[in-house]
Amino acid sequence: MNIHVLSLFPEMFTGVFGSSILKKAQEKETVGLSVTDFREYAVNKHAQVDDYPYGGGAGMVLKPEPLFNAVEALSKDGKKPRVILMCPQGERFTQKKAEELAKEEDLLFLCGHYEGYDERIREHLVTDELSIGDFVLTGGELAAMTIIDSVVRLLPGVLGNDDSPILDSFSTGMLEHPHYTRPADFRGMKVPDVLLSGNHAKIEQWRMEQSLKRTFERRPDLLVDIELSKEQKTYLEKLKNGKA
Amino acid sequence: MNIHVLSLFPEMFTGVFGSSILKKAQEKETVGLSVTDFREYAVNKHAQVDDYPYGGGAGMVLKPEPLFNAVEALSKDGKKPRVILMCPQGERFTQKKAEELAKEEDLLFLCGHYEGYDERIREHLVTDELSIGDFVLTGGELAAMTIIDSVVRLLPGVLGNDDSPILDSFSTGMLEHPHYTRPADFRGMKVPDVLLSGNHAKIEQWRMEQSLKRTFERRPDLLVDIELSKEQKTYLEKLKNGKA
Repeated sequence: MNIHVLSLFPEMFTGVFGSSILKKAQEKETVGLSVTDFREYAVNKHAQVDDYPYGGGAGMVLKPEPLFNAVEALSKDGKKPRVILMCPQGERFTQKKAEELAKEEDLLFLCGHYEGYDERIREHLVTDELSIGDFVLTGGELAAMTIIDSVVRLLPGVLGNDDSPILDSFSTGMLEHPHYTRPADFRGMKVPDVLLSGNHAKIEQWRMEQSLKRTFERRPDLLVDIELSKEQKTYLEKLKNGKA
Repeated sequence: MNIHVLSLFPEMFTGVFGSSILKKAQEKETVGLSVTDFREYAVNKHAQVDDYPYGGGAGMVLKPEPLFNAVEALSKDGKKPRVILMCPQGERFTQKKAEELAKEEDLLFLCGHYEGYDERIREHLVTDELSIGDFVLTGGELAAMTIIDSVVRLLPGVLGNDDSPILDSFSTGMLEHPHYTRPADFRGMKVPDVLLSGNHAKIEQWRMEQSLKRTFERRPDLLVDIELSKEQKTYLEKLKNGKA
């Protein structure tokens, strides 16, 4: 997979792209990551990338030419990649979207930085508008890095056994049960007896119940889409009646 | 404000903390940003920060000692800061939470990296568990950077006039109307006539309608919490009846 990013702050990406899983994935040549300053594609002599909005008002708007030209230059083989615009108005990014994007060969991210985007960029250049949540960032760069991290870790061979998460909250559909490791007693705070019992059936049951309990308490919305076993249904009834 | 981060990958933060608004805010001494590798606070000679889970299973669990020790060392004046754990099970981070955190003097972020957290860290050390969305990242670092960016930009004096966003989608409660800038005709794609008309009353009305239309189409959930003017209600009725 090849991932290109267009940003006016390419230096923001250095630490994230040069560490941990993203670094390893590039070394294994599973993914190529590149960041281009789209100011290089500006068309006037001042390398201007934004301008005042038509109709008046505060703030600046990113001009269409630099972004259209940059995307065209980066898709020279004639195949236009998916062009993803990071913006708070976009579709909410989820794990399902990460799985979908992980199947692509080329992804291109457009990151604005406090400016608005000329509407023609949205209408005629972009294929996806994505948002990571209902909050305001100074630019799209952190949102793009977040999405890139979640997509690249899904590519085959990227996560070794050592890197595998203890449990992916959103792959089981429920939140994780609590984890404990040594010491068994830390400043008087103790690990639950059941985990030290060696009784695997009891441990499994405790974990299932704790996972269900935590999901019920924190994210009951997740339970709507899950098919529960008979045992789980019984425990959920207890939780609802305050008897667990 | 002082923000500390505990992470096993401190180099991930270099680009983001050294660019743009976060760089400026540090230069103005509005915020101090520091990242500490909590492996420095490991208690055994191998600098071990994680261990196998009690009760068995795949993956590793972060041990309590290094994180408890690091948080205590960083809150030497006896005042424990808000200790924020980044995890997918946490409360969903929103703009409202950013505004709340912007009022604190000290914030401390704990970032795990694919490991689980020993439950005693959650129960006895952490004050807030936050998540930026329903997707899996390789670590909490990008989530922490995202939250830090959204909080720091709210601090007084951080955003100059030049940096102010064209419109904060989540401060008006509705999504932004489309923006256009020069050229008025780009490869045959034209700016709407109304924006070139100079008629400010008409421009304001067009923007209000477009904002309402976009919110209705993309995020109707946002309209539930907004008090609409009579004019807006009339236009919304038209949208619902497919007549706008």
